[in-house]
Amino acid sequence: MTHPFSVQAGVLQIGGVDLRRLAARAGHTPFYVYDRSLVDARIRALRQTLPHGIELHYSIKANPMPAMVHHLAARLDGFDVASAGEMMLALDAGTRPERIGFAGPGKSHDELRRAVAAGVVIHIESATQLRLVTALGWEFGVRPCVAIRVNPDFQIGKGGMRMGGGAAPFGVDASLVPALLLELARQEVAFAGFHVFWGSQCLHAPTIIQAHRQSAELVMRLADNLEVPPAFINLGGGFGIPYFPGEDPLDFDAVGEAMHDWLPGLHRRLPGTRVVLELGRYLVGEAGIYVCRVVDRKVSCGETFLITDGGLHHHLAASGNFGQVLRRNYPVLIGNRLDEPAQERSHVVGCLCTPLDRIADGAHLPATSIGDLVVVLQSGAYGRSASPTDFLAHPPPAEMLV
Amino acid sequence: MTHPFSVQAGVLQIGGVDLRRLAARAGHTPFYVYDRSLVDARIRALRQTLPHGIELHYSIKANPMPAMVHHLAARLDGFDVASAGEMMLALDAGTRPERIGFAGPGKSHDELRRAVAAGVVIHIESATQLRLVTALGWEFGVRPCVAIRVNPDFQIGKGGMRMGGGAAPFGVDASLVPALLLELARQEVAFAGFHVFWGSQCLHAPTIIQAHRQSAELVMRLADNLEVPPAFINLGGGFGIPYFPGEDPLDFDAVGEAMHDWLPGLHRRLPGTRVVLELGRYLVGEAGIYVCRVVDRKVSCGETFLITDGGLHHHLAASGNFGQVLRRNYPVLIGNRLDEPAQERSHVVGCLCTPLDRIADGAHLPATSIGDLVVVLQSGAYGRSASPTDFLAHPPPAEMLV
Repeated sequence: MTHPFSVQAGVLQIGGVDLRRLAARAGHTPFYVYDRSLVDARIRALRQTLPHGIELHYSIKANPMPAMVHHLAARLDGFDVASAGEMMLALDAGTRPERIGFAGPGKSHDELRRAVAAGVVIHIESATQLRLVTALGWEFGVRPCVAIRVNPDFQIGKGGMRMGGGAAPFGVDASLVPALLLELARQEVAFAGFHVFWGSQCLHAPTIIQAHRQSAELVMRLADNLEVPPAFINLGGGFGIPYFPGEDPLDFDAVGEAMHDWLPGLHRRLPGTRVVLELGRYLVGEAGIYVCRVVDRKVSCGETFLITDGGLHHHLAASGNFGQVLRRNYPVLIGNRLDEPAQERSHVVGCLCTPLDRIADGAHLPATSIGDLVVVLQSGAYGRSASPTDFLAHPPPAEMLV
Repeated sequence: MTHPFSVQAGVLQIGGVDLRRLAARAGHTPFYVYDRSLVDARIRALRQTLPHGIELHYSIKANPMPAMVHHLAARLDGFDVASAGEMMLALDAGTRPERIGFAGPGKSHDELRRAVAAGVVIHIESATQLRLVTALGWEFGVRPCVAIRVNPDFQIGKGGMRMGGGAAPFGVDASLVPALLLELARQEVAFAGFHVFWGSQCLHAPTIIQAHRQSAELVMRLADNLEVPPAFINLGGGFGIPYFPGEDPLDFDAVGEAMHDWLPGLHRRLPGTRVVLELGRYLVGEAGIYVCRVVDRKVSCGETFLITDGGLHHHLAASGNFGQVLRRNYPVLIGNRLDEPAQERSHVVGCLCTPLDRIADGAHLPATSIGDLVVVLQSGAYGRSASPTDFLAHPPPAEMLV
C-alpha cells in the first residue's frame, strides 16, 4: 500500500507533523487531516503537464472545508459550485463572481436569485432556468451571466461514473442547445460559454482523452450557432484516483500530451475561448486521511474485531455505502505502527450499532492495541461532507488543513 | 400503493392537515412530517396484541427528532440509546435513567463516563467496557447498573439484516458470557439483565417468532449462572416495515400469539424478569413522509425527468445508497394529485449534481408540473438523521410532528 506521506519511527507524518500530535491538537479522534503541500504538488504537476493557459477550477463539492477553499482560491483560476451554500464559500474566499460557475439540475428560485444577485456565472440546465434567470435580471437591473450546461451526445466507454451521453437530468441535450441559444439571444442575459460534464472518477486515460476530444468537437459544432466564440468552455473533470487493489493511478501525462495535440485546433476555430478543467477529487482526494482510534478489540467466533471511535457517520464512502455496488476496503493502515509487519487479519469497524458500519473487512495489519490510530487513506474528497454526521448522535469529526 | 393517510380533494392530509398547508407552515420544502396519531395507533396495536407486561422501548436511532422522543417518552416504558448524544435526548425527555439502556460496540471512555454519571443501564459489550465502567463507578462513588449484550449463538434464517449468530462486533459471544458473569460478580457493579439483538428489518413472522424463542432459551440457559433472575431481558427489535413492491407487512398478530405461548415458560423459569422489546422503525417508519417540490421538468433523450429540490442529502435511504445492494424505488406519489390517474412514466431525481441522486426511476405518475409536491412514503425512520445533510451545502430539511 503506497501513500505519499513520510514516516518517522513508524509514525505517519502529515505536513511534517506526527500523527499522534495531530490527534492531540484536534482534541479528539476521529478527525480528517489534509496535507496542503500535497494539494500544491498536484496543482504544480497539473500546470506543468497541461498546455499553457488551461484554467483550473476547483469543484467545491469534493471538499468544502473553508480553509481548503481559501487555500485553493489563491492557487486556482476559479470555482465550480453546486448550491448557493457553496457559492457563499467561494465568494467568502475572495473569488471574483465571474470566476465562479454555478451548476446544478435543480437550482431553486431562491438559489438562482442569490446567484443573480452575486453575479456569478449561472450554468443554465433547462429552459425553465433561463426564464427564471432572465426575470431575476430584470428584478436586479442586471444582465445575468450565463453558460449552457450540455448533456453530451456521446457516452464515455470504460471506467468512471457516467454523467451524460444518454437520458440524464443534467444539462440540456446537445440536440436541444441550438434552440436554447436562439431563445437565449432574445433574452437580456450575457452568454459566456459551454459546460460539458461527461463523467467522474475515471482512471483510464484513453477514455478521458476521447471525452476531451469529443467535448471539444461538440462545443465547436455548437459554437457554429454563435456570432462570436464563447468566452469559455468548461470540459468538466472526471480525473479519478485509485481506491482499491488493482486500480492504477491515472496516466495524467497522457491526458496532458493529448491536449497539446487537440487544443491548437480548438484555438484556431474558437480564438480567445478559455478552456477550463473542473477538478475536485483529483486535487484533494489523495491529500487527506481519516483517522480514528481503536477503542476495543475482541474476538468473536474466532475472528478479531478492532472497534474504533469512527465509522460511517463520518466516512460513508469508506463503509461502502456511497455509490458502491460491491463493498471493497479503502486502503487502511495503523498510523503508529508503520514499522511493524502485518501479523493479524482483523475486521476494522466503526462504533455504530449497525452491521453497515465497517471500515475494513479482513485487513492484514500489525498487532494492534486499544489506543492505536487507524488511518483511512484517499479520504480528502467526498469524506466528511458526504457522510451522515448526525446518525446516532455522535460528535462530528474534526478537520485540519496542515 | 396503499398508505395510512387520508386524502381530501386529491391532496394528502397528514394528521388532518393539508399537505400544501404543511409546506407553507414549514416555510420551505423539502421537509419531513410525522403523524403522531399513527405512532399512537401502532403503540395501541402492539399493546393489544402483546402479552400483558411486555415493555416497549424506543430505539432513538430510528428517529431522534426531540419532539418525537418527548412524545414517545410519555407512551413507552423506556429508551434504548446508542451514544451519549442519544442518552441526553432520552434524559431531556424526562425519562428515569434506569429506563434507559445504552448499547454500542464502540462506547468511548468519555461516553461511558457520561453514562455512569447519568446512571443509565450500560449494556456491556466486552470485558474492556466492564473494566472501564467499574473504574468509573469508583470515581463517582456509585455502583453502575449494567446489562450484558449477548451475541446470540443462533442465526436468523430468512429476511432481515442479521446482527449476530456469527462473528460480530456486537455484544459478547454467548459462549463467553458465563466467564464475563463471573468477572462481573467480582466487580462493584449491579447486574440488571441481558440484551439479545438478533437482527433488524424482518418482515417474516416465523423468523421473528423463532428468534424470540431462541433468545428466550438462550437467556434462560445464561441465567443458570445467576443466583437470582435478571431484572430484565431485552429481546431486541427487528420488526420490519414494507418498502418495496412484493413486500407484505409483518404479520404481527402471529408474533404476539406466539409470545403468549412461550412467555409463561420464561416467567416460570425466571420469575419477576421483565421482558423488553426495543422497537424503532416499526414504531415510526410508516408514520412519516419526506416531501420535496418539483422545481423543473425536462425531457432528455425521450425520457421525462422531474427534478426536485430534495435528494439524497436529506434521504439517503430512498436514493438506494444506505445498505441496499440493488437500488429499488421507495413508494412515491404526487401529494397534490392523488385523484388523478397515472399518465406518465418519469424519473424523479434530487437537485444534486450526481447520478446517485435518484428518488424514483421510471415511476408511473399523474401528469406532474413544476410546483407539485413529491411524497416519499415509509420515511419516518432512518431518514434525515441517516443522511449526509451537508453534502453540497444545501439547507437541511424541516421536520414536523403533527
